[in-house]
Amino acid sequence: MIKTDILIIGGGPAGMVASATSRQYYPDKRVTVVKKSEKSLVPCGIPYIFGNMLESPQDDMIPCGDMAQKMGVNLIEDEIVELNFSEKTATGSLGESYSYDKLILATGSVPREPKIENFDAEGVFFVPKDPDYIIKMEAKVSKMKTVAVIGTGFIGVEIAGELAEKGKNVHLVGSRLLKHAFDHELSEYMEDKMLHENVTFHKDRRTKKIVVDDDGNACGVELDAGEIIECDGVILATGYRPNTALAKRSGLSMRQFDTIYVDEYMRTTEPDVFAIGDCAEKRHFLTKRTVPIMLASTATAEARVAAANLYKINIVKSFSGTIDVFSTVIGDTCFASAGITEEDAAKQQINTTSSVVIVDGKHPAKLPNNHKQAVKLVAMANSGIVIGAQLIGGLDTGEMINILGVIIEKRMTIYDLLNLQVATHPLLTSGPTSYPIIQAAQNISVQHISC
Amino acid sequence: MIKTDILIIGGGPAGMVASATSRQYYPDKRVTVVKKSEKSLVPCGIPYIFGNMLESPQDDMIPCGDMAQKMGVNLIEDEIVELNFSEKTATGSLGESYSYDKLILATGSVPREPKIENFDAEGVFFVPKDPDYIIKMEAKVSKMKTVAVIGTGFIGVEIAGELAEKGKNVHLVGSRLLKHAFDHELSEYMEDKMLHENVTFHKDRRTKKIVVDDDGNACGVELDAGEIIECDGVILATGYRPNTALAKRSGLSMRQFDTIYVDEYMRTTEPDVFAIGDCAEKRHFLTKRTVPIMLASTATAEARVAAANLYKINIVKSFSGTIDVFSTVIGDTCFASAGITEEDAAKQQINTTSSVVIVDGKHPAKLPNNHKQAVKLVAMANSGIVIGAQLIGGLDTGEMINILGVIIEKRMTIYDLLNLQVATHPLLTSGPTSYPIIQAAQNISVQHISC
Repeated sequence: MIKTDILIIGGGPAGMVASATSRQYYPDKRVTVVKKSEKSLVPCGIPYIFGNMLESPQDDMIPCGDMAQKMGVNLIEDEIVELNFSEKTATGSLGESYSYDKLILATGSVPREPKIENFDAEGVFFVPKDPDYIIKMEAKVSKMKTVAVIGTGFIGVEIAGELAEKGKNVHLVGSRLLKHAFDHELSEYMEDKMLHENVTFHKDRRTKKIVVDDDGNACGVELDAGEIIECDGVILATGYRPNTALAKRSGLSMRQFDTIYVDEYMRTTEPDVFAIGDCAEKRHFLTKRTVPIMLASTATAEARVAAANLYKINIVKSFSGTIDVFSTVIGDTCFASAGITEEDAAKQQINTTSSVVIVDGKHPAKLPNNHKQAVKLVAMANSGIVIGAQLIGGLDTGEMINILGVIIEKRMTIYDLLNLQVATHPLLTSGPTSYPIIQAAQNISVQHISC
Repeated sequence: MIKTDILIIGGGPAGMVASATSRQYYPDKRVTVVKKSEKSLVPCGIPYIFGNMLESPQDDMIPCGDMAQKMGVNLIEDEIVELNFSEKTATGSLGESYSYDKLILATGSVPREPKIENFDAEGVFFVPKDPDYIIKMEAKVSKMKTVAVIGTGFIGVEIAGELAEKGKNVHLVGSRLLKHAFDHELSEYMEDKMLHENVTFHKDRRTKKIVVDDDGNACGVELDAGEIIECDGVILATGYRPNTALAKRSGLSMRQFDTIYVDEYMRTTEPDVFAIGDCAEKRHFLTKRTVPIMLASTATAEARVAAANLYKINIVKSFSGTIDVFSTVIGDTCFASAGITEEDAAKQQINTTSSVVIVDGKHPAKLPNNHKQAVKLVAMANSGIVIGAQLIGGLDTGEMINILGVIIEKRMTIYDLLNLQVATHPLLTSGPTSYPIIQAAQNISVQHISC
């Protein structure tokens, strides 16, 4: 029996931040993290293992063991298969048992099986956050010439781009690019910018079936219209589902999308049991509906709330719903989005107004490495509260979207933005006269007044 | 007599934004901008004319004429030398007269004469925002081998860096670098990073006198201890003063530092007369004292407030004081600051607490172009309200400081930051587990609780 005060199941971003935060707030408590493999990958770094950015999967590894040792956290390689909430114990896959005072479930997510025939054939890969799987997968994929990538969310688009950069022929199959994060007008601009010459984009096509040769190896992909794309292997970037089988069979109250019910402090329905990250329920900041958003940054925010409040309420959760703040980069262009898109807002009967502004990302524009910046601001039509933003620009756009994240979280209106005080610098930002967040707000305010 | 509805004196960032905003809010009104020269330089771009970034001063020009034409603004090259508030008229230097309904003073700032003997000698230059002066100056400075730069604020540091990059020997004389924007610990790190090998830094030395040869040309600089530095020319980056002689002799109520008194809507003491930008009074967001902050971004924020409200109160000024949000870049490193430094806060009897966090700017750290990021967060000791931040990092830090600008403006506390929702991406930001603004807030919160 391994005795601990705080037991954390899962060692992804949520689990590791929860352990660090527990140690900071409760230095007298013993903290134990149980994870399947001592190794860990930076989850969002996985696509870059397949291109030229990282030399090998090793370069994407997080030294969890060292980090745990530094923090005074006990890291154990095991898989918890049973929980007993009344006795406050857990059982590992090899029979080891653990006793705890406070339990945090940070079991993450796993790839979702798509409705595609033969998805389990040889030569078909998912993109799990599993180091051993990814190492083997990378070794195989690196030998292929032509790869089909199914799915046009962030992971699909990024992996397709990296494989193309590596010189492979890539077939990308799915709906328009990043459709949950960008409205049509920006999504189309994206196709021009994002798609490497080695990528053939099969837009708005559904994959029916993986074609398999006589040896059982994937050798093609059959689309909805019957068309067959030949390839040496297939990567399924078709989404993730919460890894919550253990929580479910232990009797925790569950919510939509197989997530674990949690309250504002990340408490489940069992006393002293918390859930954080991809396995825990997320409610949308605006619609207040349960949403299948899975983001490491949200997961770590939840981890801090749960861990700080394990024994005493030390901090109040400052966000009243999940804002999806995304970013990615293809080539020298960054694509970032925060909050709700105008198209999604329309579906939810939210009355919006918006403005798109395009400026130079440096001033004067003649400076080297100038990159155009496009900003779309989405606000509620009546109140002017900013509820969404989409940015395309240079690499600095990755931090620029976080300005918008704060603006949305604090329910700021376009009127608050009209005279926002910002730092502008020739080599770093657009000009003070044209700063696009402010300009877009001003355009919306003028529409407002003239109505 | 030139008749206009809205007369704007000055065509810098404030004047140009005021004219654009006037046209947007009041499309039926005639807008006239009077400026000394039809040409305009991007003010913050001036240092880059002296290095390799821009090929010539022409590359830093703003096409004000074209912009004015596009906006339907009448741009006139003239200098207003007299104002008659009761008759609502203005007189130009060549005798032309103007009548107006609303008047906006955006006369900017000019270099301040330092207490240095012979500062007006041949071969000694200021850094005015005057295109004709800068064109001539650049032609002369480009021929010099050794240049002394006096002043270690942003302009001095940037020009010294650019001249050094161009291969010149540079002597930089002044207090520690950017002392108003950074605390000691970061300022010292800065000296390592910022100073090009061609720059000799004469730290904490005062310049007594410009040494002049028999022909009256500057040939050296004499420091306080009597030491003489030989050079071919001198650049005085010793600060600016509001250009308010016209306002003063016209009888407007003035405030400290020779600024024009303005209220929340940028109204002066005369009806229908507004003042914006460097010539208008600025009060500090926290100390509420009048401060000599001159920033194009603040100037444009004021321009939007004044212009939108010329005839009707359309928008409320959303900031209740000026936050100095700065950024600059030397080599591949960005230095940025927002709000008050801890040292300045101490002088003002503000009780503060702070934390410095250093992380990798990309995750995993093995990704190409990873740059360390240092974040110092300064909060009020009791309330935890964030009042200052200092960042050193890659070029993305230029937008990152604007997240802090919003945080300070909205009086957010470190508790609001603990579970901030941010976008993180391997190629764009630090990791979700280590995002430094959040980590610094968490460190401060733990100090708080353990007190």
